Amino acid sequence: MEKHALLYEGKGKRLYKTSDEQLLIAEFKDDLTAFNAEKRGSEAGKGALNNKISTQLFRILEEKGIATHLVKTLDDTHQLVKVCRIIPIEVVVRNVATGSLVKRLGLNEGAELPFPLVEFYYKDDALGDPLINDEHCLVLGLVKSESDLEELRRLGREINRILKSFFAGRNLTLVDFKVEFGIDKDGTILLADEISPDSCRFWDTATKEKLDKDRFRQGLGDVKVAYEEVLKRILAQ
Amino acid sequence: MEKHALLYEGKGKRLYKTSDEQLLIAEFKDDLTAFNAEKRGSEAGKGALNNKISTQLFRILEEKGIATHLVKTLDDTHQLVKVCRIIPIEVVVRNVATGSLVKRLGLNEGAELPFPLVEFYYKDDALGDPLINDEHCLVLGLVKSESDLEELRRLGREINRILKSFFAGRNLTLVDFKVEFGIDKDGTILLADEISPDSCRFWDTATKEKLDKDRFRQGLGDVKVAYEEVLKRILAQ
Ligand SMILES: Nc1ncnc2c1ncn2[C@@H]1O[C@H](COP(=O)(O)OP(=O)(O)O)[C@@H](O)[C@H]1O
Ligand SMILES: Nc1ncnc2c1ncn2[C@@H]1O[C@H](COP(=O)(O)OP(=O)(O)O)[C@@H](O)[C@H]1O
Ligand SMILES: [Mg+2]
Ligand SMILES: [Mg+2]
Repeated sequence: MEKHALLYEGKGKRLYKTSDEQLLIAEFKDDLTAFNAEKRGSEAGKGALNNKISTQLFRILEEKGIATHLVKTLDDTHQLVKVCRIIPIEVVVRNVATGSLVKRLGLNEGAELPFPLVEFYYKDDALGDPLINDEHCLVLGLVKSESDLEELRRLGREINRILKSFFAGRNLTLVDFKVEFGIDKDGTILLADEISPDSCRFWDTATKEKLDKDRFRQGLGDVKVAYEEVLKRILAQ
Repeated sequence: MEKHALLYEGKGKRLYKTSDEQLLIAEFKDDLTAFNAEKRGSEAGKGALNNKISTQLFRILEEKGIATHLVKTLDDTHQLVKVCRIIPIEVVVRNVATGSLVKRLGLNEGAELPFPLVEFYYKDDALGDPLINDEHCLVLGLVKSESDLEELRRLGREINRILKSFFAGRNLTLVDFKVEFGIDKDGTILLADEISPDSCRFWDTATKEKLDKDRFRQGLGDVKVAYEEVLKRILAQ
């Protein structure tokens, strides 16, 4: 498969058309952005790490019955994916309170939540990806009905259940993550986009060391070292 | 009934204990605040107008089967209410897009919503009353269960249905409003606090003139004239 025309360039990936109109090539970039792209940077090799990490995690999820857009990895920074119509809702699942949740609700940093908390954010850079409730999703026409939202919540929780237990066996706490879903030509909801340290928070379970994009957000350094460590633990037998 | 010790002074009212521990006296103040009390002002006679408006609206709602905290009006600025434990959720119902909804979601100012939209805000001045979803309410322990949230939504929609049609007959569009609920000693959910131009948006249906606290928020002047007009239309036979 070869890259044809550039379809879209986002903050972390480029999407290219291919000779098959049902397939796209996603290229993972080294760029890092935070705070709605107010902070920008780059880390050589980050794209390749995210491509590998996301591929592994999508395979694990596929094995457990989650339908995903991933067809196959092509090389270090490219993967072949099924084209889909992205539902413009960022589905966030949280196990531990940190980041915007702590600021917003006054919860204690690092507190374990009583249940995995699902949040919907309206994927709209110009509006700063605001938190929305179910009725906002319907008013905005982001989904057809409340039952689609129930399905997104179910999938979010199921992905959390699978990945949380996978990472627990690797001394990593899955603090929270963001996923995007798309609808393919048959109307099936697919897990799309990526799951990587750009879109998750991972803490070393023993030391609480942050091994994710918070190292970039908070200027902690060693961003690539952290992403390499996450990949190493994922690949560990 | 006489005022005993001051129990609480809020932005718009003072609450006093009485000789009956199940009853409080609410005193309506002339103070006006906006943008989480960053903007402050006062309008002589506003408290008395809100007391009268809220009393009328609570009576209308009681007649239609909504349980409220109102016992009776005592004088111009005082009313006797049942004490309750306020649920710290501001229940907002919107018929027309304006204010924070337009900023937040990029909807068109003045657009009629496809259905009455219910939102929950965490009543916490220090956090700036943030928008929350159902799961946030449960994580924060604001209610016991999801069914309490369904009940708040049902009550919010029912109050909207009653008041929207009442005001439509008086050439006023009920754009949106905020209500607070409390739980009395028997565990019954009561409509509490107030319903007034401080907590609602009213537009003249024909001219779209704003007849509510937006006149203060936006520095449009004639605040008291607007509140008087709302009372006049409520009292019209
Ligand atoms: N399978 C897919 N089909 C179509 N679009 C996709 C697919 N997977 C991801 N996307 C979209 O690709 C875009 C590029 O990704 P990214 O660089 O992460 O963008 P963003 O700047 O929006 O975060 C995003 O809008 C994402 O929703
Ligand atoms: N029946 C009631 N029992 C107890 N508290 C009440 C009752 N009705 C209203 N309150 C509370 O009275 C307080 C004073 O009202 P207000 O001045 O509007 O306060 P705020 O500054 O929080 O808006 C509010 O915290 C409100 O929730
Ligand atoms: Mg992205
Ligand atoms: Mg108030």
